[in-house]
Formats: sequence, structure tokens, C-alpha cells
Amino acid sequence: MKKIGSQTISLDIPVNILETASIVGPKESEGPLANFFDRCLDDEFWGEKTWEKAESKIIKETVNAVISKSGIPMQDIDFCFAGDLLNQCISSSFGLRELNIPFFGVFGACSTFVESICLGSVFVESGAATNVLCATSSHFCSAEKQFRFPLELGNQRPPTSQWTVTGSGAVILSKTGEGPFITNLTPGKIIDMGIKDANNMGAAMAPAAFDTLITHLNDTGRKPSYYDAIITGDLGHIGKDILIDLAATKGINIKNNYNDCGVLIFDKTTQDTHSGGSGCACCGTVFSGYFYKQLKEKKINKILLIATGALMNSTSSQQGESIPGVAHAISIEC
Amino acid sequence: MKKIGSQTISLDIPVNILETASIVGPKESEGPLANFFDRCLDDEFWGEKTWEKAESKIIKETVNAVISKSGIPMQDIDFCFAGDLLNQCISSSFGLRELNIPFFGVFGACSTFVESICLGSVFVESGAATNVLCATSSHFCSAEKQFRFPLELGNQRPPTSQWTVTGSGAVILSKTGEGPFITNLTPGKIIDMGIKDANNMGAAMAPAAFDTLITHLNDTGRKPSYYDAIITGDLGHIGKDILIDLAATKGINIKNNYNDCGVLIFDKTTQDTHSGGSGCACCGTVFSGYFYKQLKEKKINKILLIATGALMNSTSSQQGESIPGVAHAISIEC
Repeated sequence: MKKIGSQTISLDIPVNILETASIVGPKESEGPLANFFDRCLDDEFWGEKTWEKAESKIIKETVNAVISKSGIPMQDIDFCFAGDLLNQCISSSFGLRELNIPFFGVFGACSTFVESICLGSVFVESGAATNVLCATSSHFCSAEKQFRFPLELGNQRPPTSQWTVTGSGAVILSKTGEGPFITNLTPGKIIDMGIKDANNMGAAMAPAAFDTLITHLNDTGRKPSYYDAIITGDLGHIGKDILIDLAATKGINIKNNYNDCGVLIFDKTTQDTHSGGSGCACCGTVFSGYFYKQLKEKKINKILLIATGALMNSTSSQQGESIPGVAHAISIEC
Repeated sequence: MKKIGSQTISLDIPVNILETASIVGPKESEGPLANFFDRCLDDEFWGEKTWEKAESKIIKETVNAVISKSGIPMQDIDFCFAGDLLNQCISSSFGLRELNIPFFGVFGACSTFVESICLGSVFVESGAATNVLCATSSHFCSAEKQFRFPLELGNQRPPTSQWTVTGSGAVILSKTGEGPFITNLTPGKIIDMGIKDANNMGAAMAPAAFDTLITHLNDTGRKPSYYDAIITGDLGHIGKDILIDLAATKGINIKNNYNDCGVLIFDKTTQDTHSGGSGCACCGTVFSGYFYKQLKEKKINKILLIATGALMNSTSSQQGESIPGVAHAISIEC
């Protein structure tokens, strides 16, 4: 393993993505990618009494599913890396408390999925672990209650707002296997361009995605066309357009092979999610459910996955702060 | 690097702790360790308008101090690992947003300091990084407001409660140097023994510390007497006694060389902190301020540092949940 350029880690032994799993909520089950997820729920509560308990159950069952699908005995998974959007990441810690695997709590807001994979990849490539588990979750109802308003208030949502994906995505990374493989990691810096509107996360996070994208291309000497697909986590429609425009200012054209998980997961015309999907589970479920299978079936062979996060809370917004963003990128190749 | 036993990582090339820094608040400045910290504040706000902004300033200035003391140019620090107790870890993300170093957000509650060092050590030993920065913070006033009651209410604190340390600790880990060195990492599992009292964190976290301690001793084949000091992060007086009792049930005597940062940082008889100190900064400042200097001066040569965290939030307690604990351990040797 070695650092190349200013902030990219090149893995001498590519890390195998052995298996993935995904569970989504009712709204995601009506979206264009519904057929790709392992399980589609028809109840936001999944039989639990609160949204927080439902979210914990979703990540717990997603993790059980990925372990079961992988065929690896639980005791052969060395470490777990997980986090979510709830205060103090309680979805992960309550959902995974019976897992009996050493636990690293991660917080990268909606970048958590790729941040966890960055950390897990370094552990596997270095020999610190043979198999690791990376997981994340989010839930529309618990996120609205916590970051904006309780749903019971029936607040109107502005056109720039995004819809937090209800669901969970999980992957198992392994030292050996048939791929797809993680080959490069580009962890991102915190970028704050002064956006203060907590209902416009795409605009707040796009500059971080831009910074990480440009850095990754510079560090690796690659052009955007090297990748079959460049995919961001949850910039949504507005953030996606901003990233395309920002890239164009540097003479970089990503229009042909770039898309965003938040754009893909919902139907813009029929599902009324305004600027598209968001949340840790947006990137987590769309990668685990859709892109992983595209890679496995060799429909695409090289993908740059860039998950973005907004590192704020409701108190910081009330205190007049802007919204710092972060974006972590991984190259995945067959 | 290799895994030994069930969950310990043995570092073939021990990782050097190049430098540490610590800043503490007014109450900590009146405690028995005051002379060891780099800076003692006389104002909980440090000139800021809110406690959250003050906490961000404390971690920012602690990180600036450790970089300055280390003599390493900012651009030679490859990655930063940081987290705190505030919702969505905003102390770290706002405090470090101008740092211009790729940022991994970590959430291990009060175990964050050692969790960050575990992650950073794997990055340095593996060649993914040459130098990394690990930092954490907590603040009595922001923590009380967020986890319990606003201070303005003047609520009475029960005898089992602990006093969140106001401050920040930061370290720089490097591939080379004169030590002290990190030699082994034992990341912990989530342990939940059913404690529900959010005013008795020591009791909630002690079983996790016990599990990690026993696992570390089994994995390494060491006895407690191998270490000059076994130090937990913030079990406080009650949790410390519980850990001693739990160890005794396995025939393990840690009475002679065991202590807790939360016990050490305040004077029990004069400072009215009930069960002692707690918070991410408890372990962070006491290690960075006190134990690091003891190791540097060879007053002690081998230490096992076990930081404990309670992975709950105020919503989970209101929903009747128990408090999952986690504990991560590192061996540090001269």
C-alpha cells in the first residue's frame, strides 16, 4: 500500500468486495431500482414502535443478510465499520450490538458508506484483517424528525430539499475472491463554501465532491473517461448539475459517464422527492443493490464511487453556521 | 501487521507517538493534573458566543498546538481522524474544517480518542500514511445541554453521575521517531449488560472495558503485571470499582497498577464531581497531558490504555433502551 499524489492510497493488493446486501423502505420500493434490492419493506416501522428502532432493525437485518449471503462464518469477520445519521449513530450501535464483532463507529454523514469502505480496505490490504464488514443506514422519518421537523407537523418541503432514503447497505471486504476489487482510495478534505441552507444539501456538498474528484484524477493521472461510471452518493438533481458545472470550469467533461445515486433511486416525475434521494443509505443501497450487480455481471468494469456528506447538525444551523461538506472516493474495478 | 488471538492487531513496526497536545477548561485547571496540560482556560466560552463554538475552538487550537510542537509541516500530515460527543460530531468538523487534511470522522463516544489512534496506527504501519493526526474533544456545558438538561435549569446531579471534561487531546503518529511506540491494538466489541441509567455511565461501560481487557490479555498472553499502568478512559470511581471486581471474578488482580483518567483528573474531596470525569477529552487530555510525558521521561515504560464509550443518545434513553458500551485498547511501550 502506498500514498500516491496528494491524498490517494493505491492498494498494491486490490481488496475484494465479496458480497453486498440492501434493504429499502416503501418509497424506494416504488422507485426505478426496486428490483435490485434484496428486500423491499412495505412498512416504515417494520413492526417496531419507533422510527429509530425500525432503522436499527433495518441495518441489523441487512448485516445478517450480507453475512448469510457471503457464506463466511460470523467469527471469521474480523472487524465491523459502521455509522449512520442519527445522533450518536444509535442506529448502528443498537442494531449491531449483538453482532459480537469488534466495532469501529464511523461518522461521515452521508459519506459514511465509502468512508467505512476506505477504512476497511486499509485493514484488509495491510493484513490487520482478512474479512471486514462495512454497513450504514438512514431512515426518512427519523432523519426528518431529527434534522428538520417532526413529520406530524406536515411542513412543506422546499424544491431544493432531498428525500432521505430509508434503508441500509452493507458489504463484506475480503483479502481474496473474484472481484470486483477496490484499487484506490481518495479520502476527502472538509470543504465549506459558505452554504447555509439546510434544505439545499446538494449545493453544500457538491464543492467537496468536486475537490475529491479533481484530486483523485490528479493523483492517479486518470481522465474521467477511464471510468465506465463516475457515481456520487447523494448530491441529487441540483448538486449533480453543480458538480458538472464545477468540473467544466476546469475543462473536465463528466457529462457522459456521471450520475448520482440520489437521482437514480427515485423517479423525478412521479415520486415527488424534489431534488432526489439523500442519506447514508442512498449511496449504500444503490451501490450494494444496483452497481455491485452491474460490476459482477461485467456490464460495467470500472467505477469511481464518491460519497458526499454534510457535517452539520440542527444546532449548528440555528447558530448561523454554514455547512461543511466532505467526499470520499474509491475506485472499483473488475 | 497481523491479527493475533481473537481480536488484537500486533504491529510489526511499532508506531511512534511523535507529539501530543492538550487544552482544558477552568475546572480541569483546578484539578491535580493542571500543571501537565499545555493550556488551561479560565473561561468556559473562550470568548465564543456558544458552548458548541467554544468546543470547536478548543479542538482547533489543540490541533494547531500539536502540529506546531511536532515541527512537521501541515502538508506532511496525511490524514486526520477525529470525533466528539456532539450530535453529528460538529465540534470536530467545524473546528477542523480549515485544516486542509483529508478527514475521517470517527464516533466511539468517549472511546473516540483510542479508536482514532487504532485507525491511525493501522494507516501508518501499513504505509498508507507517514504521519497522521488523531484528535478529540468534549465540553461539560455542551454535553449537559445535549445529553441531560440545560445548565440554566440548575438540575441536581445524582451521586453516580460524572463530570464531562472540557478540553481536547491530540496526538501525531509517525512512521519513525524515538517513541513511545504503539505496539498492539485491541478494538472492542459492543457490550450491553442492560444498564439503563444515563446518570451511571461507569456501570454501563465497565463490562465493555472488562471484555476488552480480558481479550487483550488472552490474545497477547500477557498478565496485568506486564504493564506499569493499566488506564481506562472515563469509568470514574464507580466504574473503576466495578472493573476491579469484574476482573477479580476471573482471578485477575489489577488493583496494584490500574487507574482511570476520570478518577485522576479531578480531586474527589474538593471538586464535587461525584463519580469523577468523563467525556472524550477525559482520556484525550489525561493521556496527552500526563501519561505521554510520564512515558517520554521513562517514569513508566509500558501502559495499556483502554478508552470506553457509551453508545447511546437522549432519544434512546427516552425510548427505554439500555446503554451499549464499547472499549478499545492500545499497548504503548518505550
